[in-house]
Amino acid sequence: MPLPALSLLPRPVHQKPGGGRFTITAATTLSFAPGLESVAAWLQGAVRPATGFSLMADGDPGDISLLLDPGLGGEEYVLDASPGRVEVRGGDAAGVFYGCQSLLQLLPPAIYRAAPVAGVRWEVPCGTVSDKPRFGWRGTMLDVARQFLPKREILRFIDLMSAHKLNTLHLHLTDDQGWRVEILRYPKLTEISSWRLETQLGAGADAPLDGRPHGGFYTQDDLREIVAYAAARFITVVPEIESPGHVQAVLAAYPELGVHGPGLEVDTRWGINYNVLNAEESTVNFFINVLDEVMDIFPANWIGIGGDECPRDQWLADPRSRERAAELGLARVEDLQNWFIGRLDQHVSGRGRRIFGWDEILEGEISPTATVASWRGMTGALTAARRGHDVVSCPDHLAYFDYRQSEMATEPIPVAIPLDVAGVYSFEPVPEGLDAGLAHHVLGGQANIWTEYIDSPRTLDYMAFPRLCAMAEVLWGPAEKDLESFLLRLQAHLPRLEALGVEYRRESGPFPWQQRPGIKGRPSTPEERAAHIAEITANIRD
Amino acid sequence: MPLPALSLLPRPVHQKPGGGRFTITAATTLSFAPGLESVAAWLQGAVRPATGFSLMADGDPGDISLLLDPGLGGEEYVLDASPGRVEVRGGDAAGVFYGCQSLLQLLPPAIYRAAPVAGVRWEVPCGTVSDKPRFGWRGTMLDVARQFLPKREILRFIDLMSAHKLNTLHLHLTDDQGWRVEILRYPKLTEISSWRLETQLGAGADAPLDGRPHGGFYTQDDLREIVAYAAARFITVVPEIESPGHVQAVLAAYPELGVHGPGLEVDTRWGINYNVLNAEESTVNFFINVLDEVMDIFPANWIGIGGDECPRDQWLADPRSRERAAELGLARVEDLQNWFIGRLDQHVSGRGRRIFGWDEILEGEISPTATVASWRGMTGALTAARRGHDVVSCPDHLAYFDYRQSEMATEPIPVAIPLDVAGVYSFEPVPEGLDAGLAHHVLGGQANIWTEYIDSPRTLDYMAFPRLCAMAEVLWGPAEKDLESFLLRLQAHLPRLEALGVEYRRESGPFPWQQRPGIKGRPSTPEERAAHIAEITANIRD
Repeated sequence: MPLPALSLLPRPVHQKPGGGRFTITAATTLSFAPGLESVAAWLQGAVRPATGFSLMADGDPGDISLLLDPGLGGEEYVLDASPGRVEVRGGDAAGVFYGCQSLLQLLPPAIYRAAPVAGVRWEVPCGTVSDKPRFGWRGTMLDVARQFLPKREILRFIDLMSAHKLNTLHLHLTDDQGWRVEILRYPKLTEISSWRLETQLGAGADAPLDGRPHGGFYTQDDLREIVAYAAARFITVVPEIESPGHVQAVLAAYPELGVHGPGLEVDTRWGINYNVLNAEESTVNFFINVLDEVMDIFPANWIGIGGDECPRDQWLADPRSRERAAELGLARVEDLQNWFIGRLDQHVSGRGRRIFGWDEILEGEISPTATVASWRGMTGALTAARRGHDVVSCPDHLAYFDYRQSEMATEPIPVAIPLDVAGVYSFEPVPEGLDAGLAHHVLGGQANIWTEYIDSPRTLDYMAFPRLCAMAEVLWGPAEKDLESFLLRLQAHLPRLEALGVEYRRESGPFPWQQRPGIKGRPSTPEERAAHIAEITANIRD
Repeated sequence: MPLPALSLLPRPVHQKPGGGRFTITAATTLSFAPGLESVAAWLQGAVRPATGFSLMADGDPGDISLLLDPGLGGEEYVLDASPGRVEVRGGDAAGVFYGCQSLLQLLPPAIYRAAPVAGVRWEVPCGTVSDKPRFGWRGTMLDVARQFLPKREILRFIDLMSAHKLNTLHLHLTDDQGWRVEILRYPKLTEISSWRLETQLGAGADAPLDGRPHGGFYTQDDLREIVAYAAARFITVVPEIESPGHVQAVLAAYPELGVHGPGLEVDTRWGINYNVLNAEESTVNFFINVLDEVMDIFPANWIGIGGDECPRDQWLADPRSRERAAELGLARVEDLQNWFIGRLDQHVSGRGRRIFGWDEILEGEISPTATVASWRGMTGALTAARRGHDVVSCPDHLAYFDYRQSEMATEPIPVAIPLDVAGVYSFEPVPEGLDAGLAHHVLGGQANIWTEYIDSPRTLDYMAFPRLCAMAEVLWGPAEKDLESFLLRLQAHLPRLEALGVEYRRESGPFPWQQRPGIKGRPSTPEERAAHIAEITANIRD
């Protein structure tokens, strides 16, 4: 008989023959092995608010004991609950942490509340959870460039990610519409690039502007805090600084870096932007200096350098760019993109890090360590893995959480094709047709939350949940899918989201206040989408 | 020599003759007297994120010891820091808590960050802080009816209040534009009254509507969580359910309660609304049933019943209301307001609680225990105290935080007269002319944060801070003012707000993204304001 109200993620669960329950009380003690101090403190902090109990670190073994088990792999854990004792063993501290997250899921959903809840018995059904993730990159990209998210909202999102055993937060920090990271060497990036005069409302060239300035940025101290907060929850923050396209916000402050010249403002409209960087040595150096400060803040192995959607039109029309391409010995002016990315790659690799870029970077020569985010379907994933690059799969039709969630007319600013929970759950990060021997190049996948049409933290909740629960399951769980079982576990999970105050999308559709009547989206048919992808992937060299 | 970087609130501080510093390290221990478990756990939770240290409860006395001292009054504390030891003694647990808040203020501002900060020495300058509040009601009113604030934002605001030693959160839960509290007996209050179709942008009868639905509500579990979270920080949550005016959101769901009859929607415009409750017994019973559920959720002594801005026009024009007034033996139809408030007063008092209402309730007969929020200047405070009622002073010109902060054209949606930090600091809660023997009736004061023009948590930060720091100082500190000293302490306090991620108003004015160009405010001259107050206070019987 399966355990009731089981968590979304841990499985398989073997119920103890005798059944029974373990109960957390004011007298419950906690013990932990050396190296698990931080996990133990996190668990104490997670249990205390709702229960009011402090899980005293007293006696060994404690009623709850956290242990390291060299027989288990990284991120792997075994949670064993008997009436008298709960033991969480992990292959490493991360594994123990995930075991603790599963322990919370076995408790009543009220455990997620921030203050003592009366009248709840804090019982754990006895049984064993033995679990490990399928992928090592279980990610979410947050686009804080299009819409600034206050620091506290990022910290909260990190908590929500960790409750779903996700481990990689990709922060999209810069784009045409805003630059969000303080760079000490270039103060105009925060004085000028960090805000725009107004914002396009909805999709389409004729969409109105809202007349409201938008902006904000994170200080380096804020970012270090975000990194450390995430690290304490076993989440790596991968920063992304876009180039050589998606740079209009930079060009508004430092026009000497662009082809266009002076006169650009931080962009107020959505869509692919023609204003790109020039290829001068000083421009490369500017971005190298930026990346140096970024690498000082973010200890992640991966440093995002963007590389997507860079139209070549300005270079082709600009005599100096043509001259520069010739100086550099490039066969085609278009190759300036690859050259530029190559220079950044060289610098980042030289500091012992790896570049992380969108699948367009496959068009040039990149380091063997370069890691590719495959977004235009799975073509990039297949190509990259076959060439020996590591891959993070995030094909738009299954991983883009700005896409509308249903065909309902009430979906807020509906763009692209519908992507619902079942759709996300159907996502397979390893591309079809890839040799089994190359599958290890697929590090995992991520949900990409673009925010052109997500203009508040409340809307973020609506677009992210519960689809992110399905993504978490895809990235943690086995390759074999069982939608029915997942949906049952998701039903049991929703009260946890409610306790956490997540304004997730209800199956019945948006609440009235989650709708955006009159704001135009840009729905497309599957055929239109396929044609679009075919067109933009034509120049991936395979 | 005064201590450097001293906190905003504690004083006087006597620096130790030898000077020196107490340093918190990984080995620092904490001891606490019985009854202080919860404060100790709070302190551990407050110190751990930024330092990474757990303040082990080990040994007695610990390096930091929390003690109760019967020689001190309620909320009073003495914080004594020597190189080897910090002692916090309080007259009660609240006093110890405030001593701990002062201890945080004596540490570097990075203590307020949510994750370990490298390279900081966690030093406390040695000295003694001996301190107690002047007033027992140190409040903030949050208007979550006009703009719904997600639960997490209320919890955060509670943390910010407690960091400023404020102790009363008045939640304005219902108004014409929205009803935010789940009432199990009347589900249409959340189905219908909890959202409106759109919202007026800026001030004035010709202001445009934004076309965007707005809504949200707190479940009873959410509210219990908010109450418990606040209680753990020694903050009392005083709920307010408006009547017999400010009820259009209720009438949209239950038109039988109004004079108007069917056809009303939740209001989308700001301003005094003519749609009021009728005086039927069933309407009184509806509100009594609502208040019963509210009193079950909120243990506060005070229960807000509103009572402000109730136009008599509909009653005067309505034959049944005139008939009803006669049935009730009222001299004037206008007296239905006082009769209605009186009925609620009777019920609330019968359950051992006290009504808390705006100064309009002075126009009728109210219980001796009724407490009056004096908002139309200080006239209500003077009248109420002279009649033996307790008073919370919140005169609009010194305590309304929706009022613009300067004469600058860039202030977002500037309404009323400017109210800056120095203005708030000049506020004296005890009305001029009140006999000293009646001053005890002035419980304190509060900042009222009306949100017609504060449509996001980010804007709330801008409007609330640093004015709320000045209000906290007024309510905690001595009657004698020293603006220069306060402004110096405020300068030292701003880095704390930055660490906390508070987007406070800079002295130089709003950032571009804090502005709302083109959205009309409603500035008024001091003379206009005085005339307005004279007009609306004319019928307070003195």
